[in-house]
Amino acid sequence: MVKVAINGYGTIGKRVADAVALQDDMEVIGVSKTRPNYESKMAVQKGYNLYVGIPEREKSFAEAGIEISGTVDDMIEEADVVVDCTPGNIGPENLKKYQKAGVKAIYQGGEKHTLTGLSFNSFGNYADSLGKDCTRVVSCNTTGLTRSLKPIEDFVGIKKIRAVMVRRGGDPYQVNKGPINAVVPNPPTVPSHHGPDLATVMYGANIVTVALLVPTTLMHQHNLMVELRDDVSVDDIIDVWEKRSRILLLNAKDGLGSTAEFMEYAKELGRSRNDLFEIPIWKESINVVDGELFYMQAVHQESDVVPENIDAIRALLELEENNEKSIAKTNKAMGIL
Amino acid sequence: MVKVAINGYGTIGKRVADAVALQDDMEVIGVSKTRPNYESKMAVQKGYNLYVGIPEREKSFAEAGIEISGTVDDMIEEADVVVDCTPGNIGPENLKKYQKAGVKAIYQGGEKHTLTGLSFNSFGNYADSLGKDCTRVVSCNTTGLTRSLKPIEDFVGIKKIRAVMVRRGGDPYQVNKGPINAVVPNPPTVPSHHGPDLATVMYGANIVTVALLVPTTLMHQHNLMVELRDDVSVDDIIDVWEKRSRILLLNAKDGLGSTAEFMEYAKELGRSRNDLFEIPIWKESINVVDGELFYMQAVHQESDVVPENIDAIRALLELEENNEKSIAKTNKAMGIL
Repeated sequence: MVKVAINGYGTIGKRVADAVALQDDMEVIGVSKTRPNYESKMAVQKGYNLYVGIPEREKSFAEAGIEISGTVDDMIEEADVVVDCTPGNIGPENLKKYQKAGVKAIYQGGEKHTLTGLSFNSFGNYADSLGKDCTRVVSCNTTGLTRSLKPIEDFVGIKKIRAVMVRRGGDPYQVNKGPINAVVPNPPTVPSHHGPDLATVMYGANIVTVALLVPTTLMHQHNLMVELRDDVSVDDIIDVWEKRSRILLLNAKDGLGSTAEFMEYAKELGRSRNDLFEIPIWKESINVVDGELFYMQAVHQESDVVPENIDAIRALLELEENNEKSIAKTNKAMGIL
Repeated sequence: MVKVAINGYGTIGKRVADAVALQDDMEVIGVSKTRPNYESKMAVQKGYNLYVGIPEREKSFAEAGIEISGTVDDMIEEADVVVDCTPGNIGPENLKKYQKAGVKAIYQGGEKHTLTGLSFNSFGNYADSLGKDCTRVVSCNTTGLTRSLKPIEDFVGIKKIRAVMVRRGGDPYQVNKGPINAVVPNPPTVPSHHGPDLATVMYGANIVTVALLVPTTLMHQHNLMVELRDDVSVDDIIDVWEKRSRILLLNAKDGLGSTAEFMEYAKELGRSRNDLFEIPIWKESINVVDGELFYMQAVHQESDVVPENIDAIRALLELEENNEKSIAKTNKAMGIL
């Protein structure tokens, strides 16, 4: 059993912890938190060993009546691999700690590609992370793009991709984020960074992305325009996607005409936190005009990268040589469609 | 003085009425309203002759203490041209009335192109409406597209246009519209109808549009990707737009990074209703990559078509043969930048 530590038990970290716990080839040896808030309490109630992210704050956890197992450095010492889900800019500092302790590390898409020099997507470039010391699971948006684009690239080849990404302003719990009643080009420059990020896991991708923020919290929404290398039909595209996991083809006319309805659909799946790990594509939006594929999809920003984190653990620890085997194993354990 | 009647004194109608009143070659001979609400009262207070849109409701206006000048049929009889700003599907029925009364008519973008067989944009195809009996001012979105695309077409030629249009869910006063906290592909099919609509005023335009609704009320936002016929620089594009009226190049870094800030800018212009008749383009968003122009713009859906309605009146009545002269005259009277 590979020993996994989760550094940062927040939006992504808590989901990765639960997903690791569902696998039969790895276990959670601890999670870290910098503040004694409700998530810290609930981590302990769930049975996770809790470590204090900032050693000086040990006392505040004691005062809050939360039992801790030590500091984050203790946790790192015991782990085979750390999944770093810390926010902001402390990733680079943490990397030194991981290297010193001789522990492997997985970063999230909030960190720069240059930190690890290697990025990861289960479908895009699994093999390149095999046995490596550290890798970086690309962001929720880039993961969403890779999921739908890679099978098309493999099937017919892609000349050029244009994507306009309508991003949620904040996660549901982020009460102080915006915008309210506005559309915010973010960045106001074109292209955005998302295009180059795709090329870190789908090598050579020719992509231009445009990104903006809107006043919604549930999901990102992507509008794709993909020039293909050969002429194919809409049915061909649907066939390709139907064969892939972690993609859902859903019909607007079935009452699934918006991101809000996609999340209502996710509730009916009965999963923890109502997560939607898959990338839903509006089936009606799929069209091929003059050799160009158009479609619209959505991304549950809080959860879509979670299965990729599990696969990344298997790649770094060489638990599976083959990406399809890891994907199938992760999917089965997590109930992914 | 050309006698102008406004059939439907709502979002567009009341603005067109005020804009007509500012011109020295036309006058408002009446406005119509179907209900005795606050807009009816204020129209009379402003000095407009008010006509009842649905004759059977004359009594309800009297009961509300609103002085009326007759029914909509009386108004039509007196007019040289009717600007039809009625909602829904009563446009086709009205056309028969206008024809019977021998009065010219201008429709809005909510009506189909086939109703008039002729659409209008001041920059796109002014001359084609000269002396005609009726025309149709294209929608706020199509007007916004034409404003920025036509000068580029004239300058360098356009091979193909892709546009993703992030539309406001409802106008500020539409308290029962949505979405709330969702992104709604609208339509969920690609392409949307906006592309063909552009081709009704910018003949031969090769355009694919994708449209969606988001929870905001202030403005639409457009993301443009334009394949050019020749290589030009960003500065060339800026030069072209700077020479045109009804387009504003604004900097996100000047505190104008969103649609909400654009509307705050409009407030500072001190205009009636804080309208923004011009199409603001985020200057930082303008980029040319591999012969393709990218930019982001916004559309004040309540007001951008108003100056085009004034120009359309001049075209139908042949008050000005030349579009640039009409545009300059309208701009001066309305204080347009």
